[in-house]
Amino acid sequence: MSIENLHAVPNLTTVLTGPLREIEQHLLNQQASIENWFRNQWRKTPAPFYASVDLRNAGFKLAPVDTNLFPAGFNNLNPAFMPLCIQATQSALEQICPDANNVLIVPENHTRNTAYFESLAMLQNILSKAGYTVKIGSINPEITEIQTQKLASGDELTLHPLTRIGNKVSVEGFEPCLVLLNNDLSGGTPEILENIDQTIIPPMRSGWAHRLKSGHFGHYQQVAESFAEQIGIDSWLINPLFTTCGEINFMKREGEDCIAHNVGNLLKAIQAKYDQYGIEEKPFIIVKADAGTYGMGIMTIHSVEEARELNRKQRTKMSKIKGGQAVSKVILQEGVYTFESWGNEQAVAEPVVYMLDHFVVGGFYRVHTGRGRTENLNAPGMHFEPLAFAEPCNSPDEKMSPDACPNRFYAYGVIARLALLAAAREIDELKRSDA
Amino acid sequence: MSIENLHAVPNLTTVLTGPLREIEQHLLNQQASIENWFRNQWRKTPAPFYASVDLRNAGFKLAPVDTNLFPAGFNNLNPAFMPLCIQATQSALEQICPDANNVLIVPENHTRNTAYFESLAMLQNILSKAGYTVKIGSINPEITEIQTQKLASGDELTLHPLTRIGNKVSVEGFEPCLVLLNNDLSGGTPEILENIDQTIIPPMRSGWAHRLKSGHFGHYQQVAESFAEQIGIDSWLINPLFTTCGEINFMKREGEDCIAHNVGNLLKAIQAKYDQYGIEEKPFIIVKADAGTYGMGIMTIHSVEEARELNRKQRTKMSKIKGGQAVSKVILQEGVYTFESWGNEQAVAEPVVYMLDHFVVGGFYRVHTGRGRTENLNAPGMHFEPLAFAEPCNSPDEKMSPDACPNRFYAYGVIARLALLAAAREIDELKRSDA
Repeated sequence: MSIENLHAVPNLTTVLTGPLREIEQHLLNQQASIENWFRNQWRKTPAPFYASVDLRNAGFKLAPVDTNLFPAGFNNLNPAFMPLCIQATQSALEQICPDANNVLIVPENHTRNTAYFESLAMLQNILSKAGYTVKIGSINPEITEIQTQKLASGDELTLHPLTRIGNKVSVEGFEPCLVLLNNDLSGGTPEILENIDQTIIPPMRSGWAHRLKSGHFGHYQQVAESFAEQIGIDSWLINPLFTTCGEINFMKREGEDCIAHNVGNLLKAIQAKYDQYGIEEKPFIIVKADAGTYGMGIMTIHSVEEARELNRKQRTKMSKIKGGQAVSKVILQEGVYTFESWGNEQAVAEPVVYMLDHFVVGGFYRVHTGRGRTENLNAPGMHFEPLAFAEPCNSPDEKMSPDACPNRFYAYGVIARLALLAAAREIDELKRSDA
Repeated sequence: MSIENLHAVPNLTTVLTGPLREIEQHLLNQQASIENWFRNQWRKTPAPFYASVDLRNAGFKLAPVDTNLFPAGFNNLNPAFMPLCIQATQSALEQICPDANNVLIVPENHTRNTAYFESLAMLQNILSKAGYTVKIGSINPEITEIQTQKLASGDELTLHPLTRIGNKVSVEGFEPCLVLLNNDLSGGTPEILENIDQTIIPPMRSGWAHRLKSGHFGHYQQVAESFAEQIGIDSWLINPLFTTCGEINFMKREGEDCIAHNVGNLLKAIQAKYDQYGIEEKPFIIVKADAGTYGMGIMTIHSVEEARELNRKQRTKMSKIKGGQAVSKVILQEGVYTFESWGNEQAVAEPVVYMLDHFVVGGFYRVHTGRGRTENLNAPGMHFEPLAFAEPCNSPDEKMSPDACPNRFYAYGVIARLALLAAAREIDELKRSDA
């Protein structure tokens, strides 16, 4: 058994099959010191309970483009990962709430999103199998009595209306020690949860009412720079450049000059890096609502002209996000090509990595047959391809040389954890701003 | 996704393919409350850093027959389990020694056991991948300078002679925070490790110079009874009956009367249980050196007559164990049939389950083509068959009903953890007897 066969993150199938790219090889070679570095970081800033990170792999560059602190999509993980999920959950909750037995999940307010209910059921199952009694307490005002949702498996998911007595929330006499938010709080902080005695994870300040993508990527930039220095690479290889503008109103065409100006500067900065590395692709920029989620309020921009000439449809699309919230801030982020594709149709794909506590526990590809390599894939029409444990390294009778099955997924797990660390620092800052 | 697809321990291939036995089904059905029960137990008595447990599955009964607190055999685990091993190691060491970066492994004194070196290399790799700098410091007096051992992979294992300066041990200036014993200390407590400032895990008192199998199974009996009550089964179904005698000397034929007498009583007790459950097999007893290891000092006894008529060869075999230590105490343990067999030859097999901290991280079958269903399999001629993740449940496209792939391995993980809990209590007691 050689060192290459051992992986601090699961060795999962990836779409790419060619030789390891330079960044991937570099990260694999330094696995022990990278894990040591992470350990010291988690000691300073504990990881949030969970997160998922969208990555884009351009070959020459591998970077996170979005970090979700209230992940759904657990139903898209491979069942083979469940031992990892359960082990990580046990390890996390033993720290957070050593004497907890009851956990209450506060879900999104969806009433008809069946995929979300499948994810919620899976999350409930993971916590149950970890040895907790778990119920779901909805803060959706439309849910005033118990609702059951039929699942694809034939099982049922039960949603209870959340009630509050004094400073404690409960459902039907079930009083949790721990409240697990699976609701991104785009609509603001729900009164029913304010100042309760029970522990809420992640803290409510990490909801989208308080969080900004630019805040996250500001932390990510610092994390990436410190990590890059540690392992001796250019931080740009793992860090998408970004900038912001002040107040924006797409419908009133306020702030357009700033966007066009910053698009120009950012395109120049990316082009300089492309030139440095001999990359012949064309730079592009992703403009996103700074507090946006669900893939809403996102557009791809290739030139200053394009930024100046937004049509009414584009402006309308950019002006509102989840729950009808108005967009008043945007982040302009370096677009990262994805050179991964899935299936015979060569549909464009990007990996999404799931973490519980500071452990990588699985992932899947987000695939979109109708989108290009420079576009946001988190859009209607996307589907998910769960990653499996990489087969050639899985078989005990394998006679291949150990180098024949490197853990291509390792690099994804490292970059995703860098984004997780940025999120940890971000949450820490948001919490302190609360006090 | 149904609950049956989710497992608190990995879903591994097992030899048995028939319907789930009653005990297995019973344990699977109560997974959440079992995990909850374990969590409360670990809070009272933390699990040792590692252990492996030999199980025997007779179908009607599933029980541990030996618990190793200084496991070797890591090389026999499937590489696919490494993420679980690494995650568990990180979780354990973050607790035990939050600011440790350097770990020193103290191995067995073997100089030619290549299988052991493969295991040691794997253990070193697991710790490295978990993010620690790991060296191996031997206490073998024959090792006075650095020795390298060639591994099957082509890599090399480096053994350093352990040195002590003041109250600290080190190898070549490498000063560990943590000393990990992978030496069962059958020969007694090594002076070089006594009263050092560094943390030693597992504690030296858990070595075979202090430990007795009967002490372990005394704790196991209490654990099994409390667990059986909790989940509503007869504790005998998971607990091998046992008894001991006082001082024994096989060569001087001292203590034989006690053995014969107790064999008679134990056979009667087992027969009563067999009658109760309508089991038509013949009871048998395993007599083992109470401080024995490496499969040495073990014999199978089927009747009082057989116990009375030990021949010279049997007595010689029973009189000495590892390192030439004399046997002065034995444990008489209810024999548990193994009805598992491996391969076309139907070789008798028993599962060995590995745990790091309180997490089940993998296992393999110990297989012996030359032994019967009532015999000790830990003997020359044995080989190992690594368990893999159970394939039918592993594939994301699986269209089978969820019940079609129950986690047969779950029951093994539960019983192994009961033995682990017994070991935790045993170590706790041994430590207190030290003070």
